[in-house]
Amino acid sequence: MKVDGRHFRSIWLEPDGWSVGAIDQRRLPHEFVVARWTSADDAGEAIRSMLVRGAPLIGATAAYGVALAMRADSSDAALAQAYKMLIATRPTAINLKWALEEMQRTLRPLAPSARIEAAYQRAASIAEEDVAINHEIGRHGLALIEAIAATKKPGEPVNILTHCNAGWLATVDWGTATAPIYQAQDRSLAVHVWVDETRPRNQGASLTAWELGHHGVPHTVIPDNTGGHLMQHRMVDLAIVGTDRVAANGDVCNKIGTYLKALAAHDNGVPFYVALPSPTIDFSIDDGARIPIEQRAASEVTHLTGRTADGRIETVRVVPEGSPIANYGFDVTPARLVTGLITERGVLKPERAALASAFPERTSQ
Amino acid sequence: MKVDGRHFRSIWLEPDGWSVGAIDQRRLPHEFVVARWTSADDAGEAIRSMLVRGAPLIGATAAYGVALAMRADSSDAALAQAYKMLIATRPTAINLKWALEEMQRTLRPLAPSARIEAAYQRAASIAEEDVAINHEIGRHGLALIEAIAATKKPGEPVNILTHCNAGWLATVDWGTATAPIYQAQDRSLAVHVWVDETRPRNQGASLTAWELGHHGVPHTVIPDNTGGHLMQHRMVDLAIVGTDRVAANGDVCNKIGTYLKALAAHDNGVPFYVALPSPTIDFSIDDGARIPIEQRAASEVTHLTGRTADGRIETVRVVPEGSPIANYGFDVTPARLVTGLITERGVLKPERAALASAFPERTSQ
Repeated sequence: MKVDGRHFRSIWLEPDGWSVGAIDQRRLPHEFVVARWTSADDAGEAIRSMLVRGAPLIGATAAYGVALAMRADSSDAALAQAYKMLIATRPTAINLKWALEEMQRTLRPLAPSARIEAAYQRAASIAEEDVAINHEIGRHGLALIEAIAATKKPGEPVNILTHCNAGWLATVDWGTATAPIYQAQDRSLAVHVWVDETRPRNQGASLTAWELGHHGVPHTVIPDNTGGHLMQHRMVDLAIVGTDRVAANGDVCNKIGTYLKALAAHDNGVPFYVALPSPTIDFSIDDGARIPIEQRAASEVTHLTGRTADGRIETVRVVPEGSPIANYGFDVTPARLVTGLITERGVLKPERAALASAFPERTSQ
Repeated sequence: MKVDGRHFRSIWLEPDGWSVGAIDQRRLPHEFVVARWTSADDAGEAIRSMLVRGAPLIGATAAYGVALAMRADSSDAALAQAYKMLIATRPTAINLKWALEEMQRTLRPLAPSARIEAAYQRAASIAEEDVAINHEIGRHGLALIEAIAATKKPGEPVNILTHCNAGWLATVDWGTATAPIYQAQDRSLAVHVWVDETRPRNQGASLTAWELGHHGVPHTVIPDNTGGHLMQHRMVDLAIVGTDRVAANGDVCNKIGTYLKALAAHDNGVPFYVALPSPTIDFSIDDGARIPIEQRAASEVTHLTGRTADGRIETVRVVPEGSPIANYGFDVTPARLVTGLITERGVLKPERAALASAFPERTSQ
């Protein structure tokens, strides 16, 4: 999508044909800085330090990391070592594992001399597949927005609430929750997005607001506490969020606070959609209660980084010294509160049978 | 309650017998600074600048402001002028209006020469009445905590979630939502408080955590997004919050985000209580939908103030320049989601008839 009027992806092959570029997401929204990686270690460090984040982008980064490793040394040992180093950067990321296994499956049968070109090709196709999947998610979600737009007066926007960043910065392009929004915008459909700031890491205020703003999508940043009030007052037409993992029964694990918004949507008759590429569905997990919830560092809650009036970037403590912190990264929204799952194969009911029948190849294994 | 082991109220008459002291709440939790007022203008500025906040404390401040005005000039004109100046400092604060009318009603019939002493006496009694009311709220709320404690294993704490600051800093002493907690703690009942940080002004992280910590109450600060997850996992035994206004039907207007926590409590069978002095019930407002919701400055969302690692107090911007903000100060929790209203006359059902019969003198007027 666009940054300062120019088209960007979150990750790309540099014009030299071998090094890899990416947006340094730790510096957003205050500074737009791009990184250039020349080794697998660079890619691994980018994942570890959260220079890149978002499941699909992590997968693409790992794939390019393997390609960079092969360029330095395309032996069996180097391939195994690249896998081992990269898988350890964020052990719970499903796409990371998937992308690394794809790369291994592709490269292992080949002669070392053929691996470099094949690695770059497969990494590029992993990135392109992500773009294509998100484009399809956008197409299916767009139909939901169009249906609501048809009930509005001309020029009256469709109001969409989102939580965290399931935007193009979390993927290679389009995003998941944002794909329908960008496609609506590109067709000049009037949309307006309520952006939850998404404490504690503020991905909504830092990333979603930034990317929507650069692409020209009307939006308003709100504290996470605000969505219920807006829904009570008919100021939200639908909610679309992303997800980190969907259980086989349709329960949705997503950024902490998603459950509260789903409750408010349900209480006020507001449709609540979850957008996801189908690999996010984990058929091995029966229901959401079995999804482990990561606890993250207290410093994410106690400290915030921003820009001072005179332009310095400063980190400040906002919680009294000595007050303990709990920082659960995710919560589980029960399927009963979810209107539909927007996937690349269409909008599905969050029910075991519906998921299984949409992805027979996943459940018959 | 205690600060660094020493007992404090949020407002007090200084030892000189006429000037007034108060804690500068804008500086918390980073610095403990007390202010001293020698004029009605000082008191008015303290309300306007939010050096003091919280409905009962604002009322006591205005009352002492009138006393300071009388000391300078106890004429009818000065009394009218003090009323006019002070009422304009926060026009929507109900206790402010009530306290100023009390002062006028007390002083107007008196000869100017008798007004100074009478003003200080009435201001002191307004403060004492607040302390007594909160003590009674605490006594009734304590019974609820004791009942839950009786179902726990020895030493296992009663887990209480609260939102915003309805603590002693918002009142003269004890607080409303915190009064049962402090009384439980003073009786060595094991309690633990989940403190919502309460974006955007962070009164939970800045004030509630600070006051609980100084009084030795075990607590944990959480992002506002977290409470639903904790309730799903049986980590909250009850919620107690304060309120800015209760409608005649029991609908509760409180800090934005309260509604979301009440939904989660309801969804998980967690009791959800609201603690309030009875003047907070507005019998002239039929239901919560009629309570006007204040919109506050965008800067409360875009900027945060905290302490840098090297001890400086800095204000930083955390939202991209150019992203619009919505900042609704309050939301309305429907009475159907409220388990009970903890008042100085006992725990009431949030129903029109229950409120009317508990306060017949208010509804028969």
